[in-house]
Amino acid sequence: MQERPSKKNFSRWYDYVIYNADLIDIRYGVKGTVVYKPKAMEIIDSLYSLFESKLKERGHKKYLFPLFINFSSFKKEAEHIKGFEEEVFIVNKAGGKELEEPLIIRPTSETAFYPMFSIWIKSYRDLPMKTYQSVAVYRYETKATRPLFRGREFLWIETHNVFSSEEEARKHVEEDISMMSEQLKGLGIPYLIVKREPFDRFPGADESYAYDAIMPNGEVLQVATTHYLGQNFTKPFEVKYLDQNGNYRIPYSTTLGIGITRILAAIISVHGDDYGLYIPPQLSSVKGLIIPIYYGSSEEAVKQYVQKVLEYAKPHIFIPDFGEETPGEKFYKSELYGFPLRIEIGRKEAENNTVTIFRRDIRKKLTVPLKDLKIKLDETLENMQVSLKNKSETIKSIPEANNKDEVIKLLKEYPIIKINFCGRAECAQDLKKTTGGYEIRGELVGETEKAGEKCSWCGEKAIKKVIVARSF
Amino acid sequence: MQERPSKKNFSRWYDYVIYNADLIDIRYGVKGTVVYKPKAMEIIDSLYSLFESKLKERGHKKYLFPLFINFSSFKKEAEHIKGFEEEVFIVNKAGGKELEEPLIIRPTSETAFYPMFSIWIKSYRDLPMKTYQSVAVYRYETKATRPLFRGREFLWIETHNVFSSEEEARKHVEEDISMMSEQLKGLGIPYLIVKREPFDRFPGADESYAYDAIMPNGEVLQVATTHYLGQNFTKPFEVKYLDQNGNYRIPYSTTLGIGITRILAAIISVHGDDYGLYIPPQLSSVKGLIIPIYYGSSEEAVKQYVQKVLEYAKPHIFIPDFGEETPGEKFYKSELYGFPLRIEIGRKEAENNTVTIFRRDIRKKLTVPLKDLKIKLDETLENMQVSLKNKSETIKSIPEANNKDEVIKLLKEYPIIKINFCGRAECAQDLKKTTGGYEIRGELVGETEKAGEKCSWCGEKAIKKVIVARSF
Repeated sequence: MQERPSKKNFSRWYDYVIYNADLIDIRYGVKGTVVYKPKAMEIIDSLYSLFESKLKERGHKKYLFPLFINFSSFKKEAEHIKGFEEEVFIVNKAGGKELEEPLIIRPTSETAFYPMFSIWIKSYRDLPMKTYQSVAVYRYETKATRPLFRGREFLWIETHNVFSSEEEARKHVEEDISMMSEQLKGLGIPYLIVKREPFDRFPGADESYAYDAIMPNGEVLQVATTHYLGQNFTKPFEVKYLDQNGNYRIPYSTTLGIGITRILAAIISVHGDDYGLYIPPQLSSVKGLIIPIYYGSSEEAVKQYVQKVLEYAKPHIFIPDFGEETPGEKFYKSELYGFPLRIEIGRKEAENNTVTIFRRDIRKKLTVPLKDLKIKLDETLENMQVSLKNKSETIKSIPEANNKDEVIKLLKEYPIIKINFCGRAECAQDLKKTTGGYEIRGELVGETEKAGEKCSWCGEKAIKKVIVARSF
Repeated sequence: MQERPSKKNFSRWYDYVIYNADLIDIRYGVKGTVVYKPKAMEIIDSLYSLFESKLKERGHKKYLFPLFINFSSFKKEAEHIKGFEEEVFIVNKAGGKELEEPLIIRPTSETAFYPMFSIWIKSYRDLPMKTYQSVAVYRYETKATRPLFRGREFLWIETHNVFSSEEEARKHVEEDISMMSEQLKGLGIPYLIVKREPFDRFPGADESYAYDAIMPNGEVLQVATTHYLGQNFTKPFEVKYLDQNGNYRIPYSTTLGIGITRILAAIISVHGDDYGLYIPPQLSSVKGLIIPIYYGSSEEAVKQYVQKVLEYAKPHIFIPDFGEETPGEKFYKSELYGFPLRIEIGRKEAENNTVTIFRRDIRKKLTVPLKDLKIKLDETLENMQVSLKNKSETIKSIPEANNKDEVIKLLKEYPIIKINFCGRAECAQDLKKTTGGYEIRGELVGETEKAGEKCSWCGEKAIKKVIVARSF
């Protein structure tokens, strides 16, 4: 096994961990795709059920739409097609013949859902219609792909929602923001929520809100987005409803995309350390390994004691590791794989009726009497959950630059800064080019402070404060 | 709403039920695909967790492979590509350009898994490797599609398994047969398990076993298959392992495909009746509707009583239906949608502290004291589960024909018969043509009786007994 790189060298560390902790395999041979292995699938399934249950609580119903989208549907919203046409995979051939009309492989599913919305929605009684589906989507990314960060096949949840009024639709956007915010906190991921600039919106959206996870090196990774679509999709797809007074009206709509693979990438990146992965307890059905430590005569006693410990540890799932490696190798493995806890049991523990619990996140040991094990495990896992939330709240204040020199100077010290901004796409492009890749990410949601007079980059009239960061 | 067709006219009844019970929508506009609506998704998710948990118990690990398969991998097993090349969807274009090498959309995933098996499997310690993935697969079917029975996009689970010896691989096939058999029984689906004839095998298999569900009209629907692949895939994909003696060996492999959409189709078809759907209790998180029946002054008392009943019904989920329809309309709806139970509550029930339970499967009512409600619900749901199993065991004996005249005569009376068979593909084709579509399905698994002397169709030497039926 190659030497474990330090997390300070984030790129090397990341590649090492996803491979050695057996999460995914990048050797599949179709560019921009990966094979998800059992450890990754467990986290992915946990993330899906976490977010699906939150959506169901909020009244979203689960659907599953076909992978293929008719080319004629795909063309209906002008901005949308312009935004995606250079990215889609197209099926031209099937059953040994050219297709009469090529099929688009979904890059996102507005153009799949809206034709059906126009059939399903008849009257105000059908609204709000809050839906979602959990699927993979396909985009022919040309930027350098990094496994789970950016790929041509990625896993997500997409909600598509139709409301009778603008007010309701906007309220739903706010609810998305608060739900996503709570969930990212619960997962211990530090993040910013920003309102994207008009030149940086989802194709077809009136407003786009992005959930940018902050990676250990200070770069940001967009893990989800909420878009307020106004009537941009309901109009061209002819979705309309009869209101209480018998008049036809055009409804308003929103969408939320939750990037499951990107959240997985964020979890790996944020929680991992020089020893390997750390999987938050709520994402792992197996809470840890039980590692027996014995020499000669103590073997039988320790093995029997492990069985007793398993009983006491219920209802938490622990796996006893009777493999042939040394205890040291097993410790190494339990940390690399990121099990939340490990239980160490030697002759002393067996004799004294105690167990030693090792907490993966803070790498601390704790010895507890066997009879208190269940309570201590509950308590420890609970504490780990709380400290995840604290981990998420790491962005105390973001330094602000007021002119070009300050921008350049501050970006040498801080990965994320705030500036006053004129709102012009050209200015944003110039900033990006000059600073070697830093981007205007948008206005911070919840920001109340007014902009200064001049754009911190070009000196023109400023109209807002925005976040500047580098993204993956 | 159109008039409810009787189940005697199975085709019309099926189309009516999938549409009116709001399971799927066939108006999506890409041929051979459907939109799954929330009611179907609940059953589908239940089926996935049912089968996934059984596979996990048996030591299968969950993977997720990309949708796309490299054309070069796809070509490696000669029979396999011959069997599928006329059925695949091909991506020629992506990112606005022609692809250098076209991508195949998975019609099944042997050619995705085996290149990775050849990387992952090194030594006997890596075996057995038992995997699965839960995905949609894509086949350009040209036979008439019927929603959920046959489509171009279908949902399934596929296991891919590699063993060090032929013996182990064959034992795994037997375990598949017994697991699938138990599950289909539990779902109340009558079925036959047959060993397919050589001319009717999965492309690349040495042996194929099919799980044929028996539909109400006597036709069969293949809902799953297990294939013993021998070394047909491990050889061309160069999967090999180092055995305990330090020699390289080629392992043996198997696959099981569980057709989730087809099992859904079988559940709808077998359990539904003239009143609509019946969803087996274990597939429905909501066990039923509580329907209040009140007139004028009893309204408040009945509504309060419903809240009390909800408490007593825990931990089973029931939904109180306070909608504006009449109780009669609600009864109609609860049956059409197939809720396992419904609870009726009127003034009398509220005064006497009782509830009336309606069992959907046998359409019988039962009045129970409120205090016994939980016990009675447990018991009733348990009984419903048992009667499902009985429903599955409906094939007592299959009549046997010994010559062509008998075959033709018996097929007028029975949808499924047994014959002595010569084993020749031409004979099977002739039988199919002459009888207007009846097929040799294969040898019944577990059949011990020897074949008669002469093939019941052509009169040549018989070598086995086989099942003849018509398939969807």
